[in-house]
Amino acid sequence: MVAAAYPTPPYPHNMHHYPLPEYRHSTDGQLVVRLRFAKDAVVDQLWLRTEPDNEEQLTAMRQEGADEHWQWWTAQMPLSDHELTFFYCFKAICGDRQLWLDATGMNPRAPKREHQFRWLIANHPPQWLRHQVFYQVFPERFRNGDPQLNVQSNAYLYHGEVASRAMSWGEAILAEGDQAAFYGGDLIGVQQGIDYIQQLGVTAIYLNPVFSSPSSHKYDTEDYFNVDRHFGGNAALADLCQQIHQRQMKIVLDAVFNHTSESHPWFDRWQQHDSAGAYASPNAATRDYYYFYDPANADSYHCWKGAKTLPTLDWSNPQVQDYFCNPQSGVIQHWLQPPYCIDGWRLDVIHMLGDGPGAKNNAARMRQIRQAVKQTNSEAMVLGEHFFEASRWLQGDQEDGAMNYFGFATPVRAFLAHQDVAYQPCRIRAEDFDDWLAEARHGIAFEHQLAQFNLLGSHDTARFFTLVNEHLPTMKQAVLLLMSYIGVPSIYYGDEIGLTGHNDPYCRTCFNWDETSWHQELKHWYQQTIALRQQYSALQCGTYATLYAKADLFVFARFIAKQMLIVAINRSDEQQAIELDLSCWSTPISNAQTLLGQAQLTLSTQQLSVHGYEASVILCQ
Amino acid sequence: MVAAAYPTPPYPHNMHHYPLPEYRHSTDGQLVVRLRFAKDAVVDQLWLRTEPDNEEQLTAMRQEGADEHWQWWTAQMPLSDHELTFFYCFKAICGDRQLWLDATGMNPRAPKREHQFRWLIANHPPQWLRHQVFYQVFPERFRNGDPQLNVQSNAYLYHGEVASRAMSWGEAILAEGDQAAFYGGDLIGVQQGIDYIQQLGVTAIYLNPVFSSPSSHKYDTEDYFNVDRHFGGNAALADLCQQIHQRQMKIVLDAVFNHTSESHPWFDRWQQHDSAGAYASPNAATRDYYYFYDPANADSYHCWKGAKTLPTLDWSNPQVQDYFCNPQSGVIQHWLQPPYCIDGWRLDVIHMLGDGPGAKNNAARMRQIRQAVKQTNSEAMVLGEHFFEASRWLQGDQEDGAMNYFGFATPVRAFLAHQDVAYQPCRIRAEDFDDWLAEARHGIAFEHQLAQFNLLGSHDTARFFTLVNEHLPTMKQAVLLLMSYIGVPSIYYGDEIGLTGHNDPYCRTCFNWDETSWHQELKHWYQQTIALRQQYSALQCGTYATLYAKADLFVFARFIAKQMLIVAINRSDEQQAIELDLSCWSTPISNAQTLLGQAQLTLSTQQLSVHGYEASVILCQ
Repeated sequence: MVAAAYPTPPYPHNMHHYPLPEYRHSTDGQLVVRLRFAKDAVVDQLWLRTEPDNEEQLTAMRQEGADEHWQWWTAQMPLSDHELTFFYCFKAICGDRQLWLDATGMNPRAPKREHQFRWLIANHPPQWLRHQVFYQVFPERFRNGDPQLNVQSNAYLYHGEVASRAMSWGEAILAEGDQAAFYGGDLIGVQQGIDYIQQLGVTAIYLNPVFSSPSSHKYDTEDYFNVDRHFGGNAALADLCQQIHQRQMKIVLDAVFNHTSESHPWFDRWQQHDSAGAYASPNAATRDYYYFYDPANADSYHCWKGAKTLPTLDWSNPQVQDYFCNPQSGVIQHWLQPPYCIDGWRLDVIHMLGDGPGAKNNAARMRQIRQAVKQTNSEAMVLGEHFFEASRWLQGDQEDGAMNYFGFATPVRAFLAHQDVAYQPCRIRAEDFDDWLAEARHGIAFEHQLAQFNLLGSHDTARFFTLVNEHLPTMKQAVLLLMSYIGVPSIYYGDEIGLTGHNDPYCRTCFNWDETSWHQELKHWYQQTIALRQQYSALQCGTYATLYAKADLFVFARFIAKQMLIVAINRSDEQQAIELDLSCWSTPISNAQTLLGQAQLTLSTQQLSVHGYEASVILCQ
Repeated sequence: MVAAAYPTPPYPHNMHHYPLPEYRHSTDGQLVVRLRFAKDAVVDQLWLRTEPDNEEQLTAMRQEGADEHWQWWTAQMPLSDHELTFFYCFKAICGDRQLWLDATGMNPRAPKREHQFRWLIANHPPQWLRHQVFYQVFPERFRNGDPQLNVQSNAYLYHGEVASRAMSWGEAILAEGDQAAFYGGDLIGVQQGIDYIQQLGVTAIYLNPVFSSPSSHKYDTEDYFNVDRHFGGNAALADLCQQIHQRQMKIVLDAVFNHTSESHPWFDRWQQHDSAGAYASPNAATRDYYYFYDPANADSYHCWKGAKTLPTLDWSNPQVQDYFCNPQSGVIQHWLQPPYCIDGWRLDVIHMLGDGPGAKNNAARMRQIRQAVKQTNSEAMVLGEHFFEASRWLQGDQEDGAMNYFGFATPVRAFLAHQDVAYQPCRIRAEDFDDWLAEARHGIAFEHQLAQFNLLGSHDTARFFTLVNEHLPTMKQAVLLLMSYIGVPSIYYGDEIGLTGHNDPYCRTCFNWDETSWHQELKHWYQQTIALRQQYSALQCGTYATLYAKADLFVFARFIAKQMLIVAINRSDEQQAIELDLSCWSTPISNAQTLLGQAQLTLSTQQLSVHGYEASVILCQ
């Protein structure tokens, strides 16, 4: 579509601007931008377009010189002193046509604000994030470090009816009642597992909830200030945090602030406490911590997706806000302080949190939560859980990054596993996959793209290896995408050894510590791709460009000024040979070396050949 | 792209849902939606997708029956009680593929929120708006009703230097100093012109500023509570409003609240008042009504786009907010009350208004302004001036409609006049034109689309007839687009008689009351197309569908349940014959009648033939 609107030579067929230092930097409150196009091309007029006061401003660009292949143009503009994001794009007049360059590419007309380039003025996501590889641990199922802490059968009732049940390690998951089935995993086990986790190349750990709770998943909190005694209590978490930090690793905890357990003293569904809670007593001091559709009916309380075990907190209540967000005494700051000093919070179902039902005032509450985190530690991460499009939460005032289901996990599942987020059949082509990833990127700033929390699965999804019917080549493609796509990779515990399992609860099987059971080839692939990511900064902080997306073949580049990696994914069993346009990279390529897989790039012809089921990486220098 | 992802028959190749009563309505707090696809097609599963608490909810749809051609499916969902807009879309499983239907059409995957269908829950734009045809009057240049009111030469200085200059009616516009050139137009003249305006078919008048001001354009207000005496003062406006309302017509005034005149007593740049204003005295009570970059430098005041005559108001000042927005004494309510009872405010450069420089807190101020209007008269219109993409202001909490430069005037100029908003060369194809219009529609709810203020030009642009080099067929195409596209048409005074003129000030020539000078064919075309709009409700409140957009030919439909109008625009001189897909309309077409122009639709073959330079309308029933 756009192509036909392009001018003909000697006008440029393409212009290049990327969120990299060679293309833009700020100095003295000014943003200096640079643009590049073919040396032999001419433009009649060229401007930087901005909207400093919501009104268009066109700043003429001046040629800054040329190298062997490119001419460079530049302009600068004062940055606003009160906005979080500075939006800009480029306008060129070429004969009777116009060329606009924005974050989506070249277009024949002015882009809407959402599609413009973004420069974050303030509220930058923590720099350390982009250099991490996360490992998600579901504590009850990772490792039993101290059997003395095990929950005994019938130790207590869950939801007033299901007796807690002690399981032996590795025993099959119960179809019913897994939330009351305890295998003995604990934080001592996580400590014992750090060596293992670290030899994978992992640098950060995200723990599912650890606070006191009657369930095995612990998304129903009874006490936000105490780690569950069966996990080893606060002491075990303090030790764990200390060991993690001694290794220069990071740790992030799960913040379940949308709802509590029905047996939290505030609610006390089963009246286990002396003073009545919100459930039994309309006069309870904590009654207004929750929302009752019918004040006369104790059972009419608002709860998460109708789950009676999870009464939802009403965040319109200032005491609720204060309990979590108070800078001196709140839950959020407490765990960010010594002896724990956690490095961030992962906010559970955060898009649903709000005043009463319906996520009312969600944005205002999110800003409060963000502020509570940042004023304790401005370098701590605010990570939101979002199964769907989350750009609203990633505009600088709320989250640093989101669990990237919409912009990564779901499209990868669709492209490689032919299922959607609800496990329904779904078939998309590489073109659709590319569009999908692009749409998710274009709604947020580059720094937020680098801070997105990419994953193949979690405690809430089927394991990816199961979704692809344990087809190794496809799994390896998914893992390579995870480690090479823009954003921070997170591995769900056990995926790397080939653990399988359908959706919750079957994705919560015990980690198998018998190495003979491990899928060594898959584990080796994880180690190789993680090592690659750690070795090449282009994968940690490089920009992104799609090089080819058609039918079954998807090829993209991650690059910085002096380093470009090309990733090729061929989901079909047929070898393919294509010609690449590598003009996205300004550096002349002197050498192309295949780092992973068998794909070959012939520099003279820019021909790329990829075998069937290939997942390959090529380094250009 | 999408097409290839479509399933093959017997799966549906298309599904239909439009913002019309037959497709959706609300009842008892529920939204009932209906979907239509081919009678012989089958879907495996079909859902209504919503996000009631920001989390996906899929509601199974049930078949409701079928007619000769279509099967209809339905579902319903409770509407949120606190959100302004309800978002939804449709998901279908067809074999191993998915079909999603959203406001942009059929897609292979879930749309982002912005592209979903929208149902406005609250803050509906006034219903009366969609039935209007506006006429914009620049009072100083429309008609001289009372020569006694004329400004005399040297009556006063403008900007302390340019002497006011009395011009004779129709005298050529001055290249310099038009703002101080007075031709004698006044509100008595507008009264005298109402018969003329009304016989065009116009039903509403938008007046450029009328309040006391030293300039001919009056965008520099000296007194917000008094109409300029040279326009006839408050009495003349009261009479005019009365006459307009007697004729069941509407009147909208220009609200210039972003800045004042430098000679407003608050600022008093030329110290014409006893007590010093903000300019001369840092201690003036009104000093903080304005923003000084350097408090020690009187000339460092923030002004509109650097124009020293227009010091910008600092809306962070509560007294400024109160002066305009106070429900009892504010400027906004004053003119909404008797004896004026104006029907709405057009807010000048409203996107630039804010706290200090840079439009800070613009959204919060806009909500204050909206509230001030609506609490006085909930049926009054809040119209924003925006030269660029304005969907941010059209989400229900701010404006009813925007001056639709981005979504109408600019793309029409690009498509038919080959110039962009800055008069730079620009060439787009019908495909690009269609994409552009669609992008502007999809960011806002249907009711806001109907309330958009469409125009070809204004006091701030070259006249469209001049932009197309007075090429009549092209001008007629533009006028037909204005009267038939979704939104409220507005005619800039004199366009209909063929007035010409380049950009401001040349677009502000005197209306020529010598009928022999009028372009009768053009004027007749205006009357015909306005009459058509008034006769067919499909043009006032019908939904929109593009039928064909390729190269030089653009064909679209406006339709309601029992009436569809097809508009064909062929900007080339070559006759074209194409086949139309009319499945957007659920009603079997028994008759196709050409109402305007020569285009012919052959029902048996659905062939449409359009002559070169044709602008044509066909009625289907």
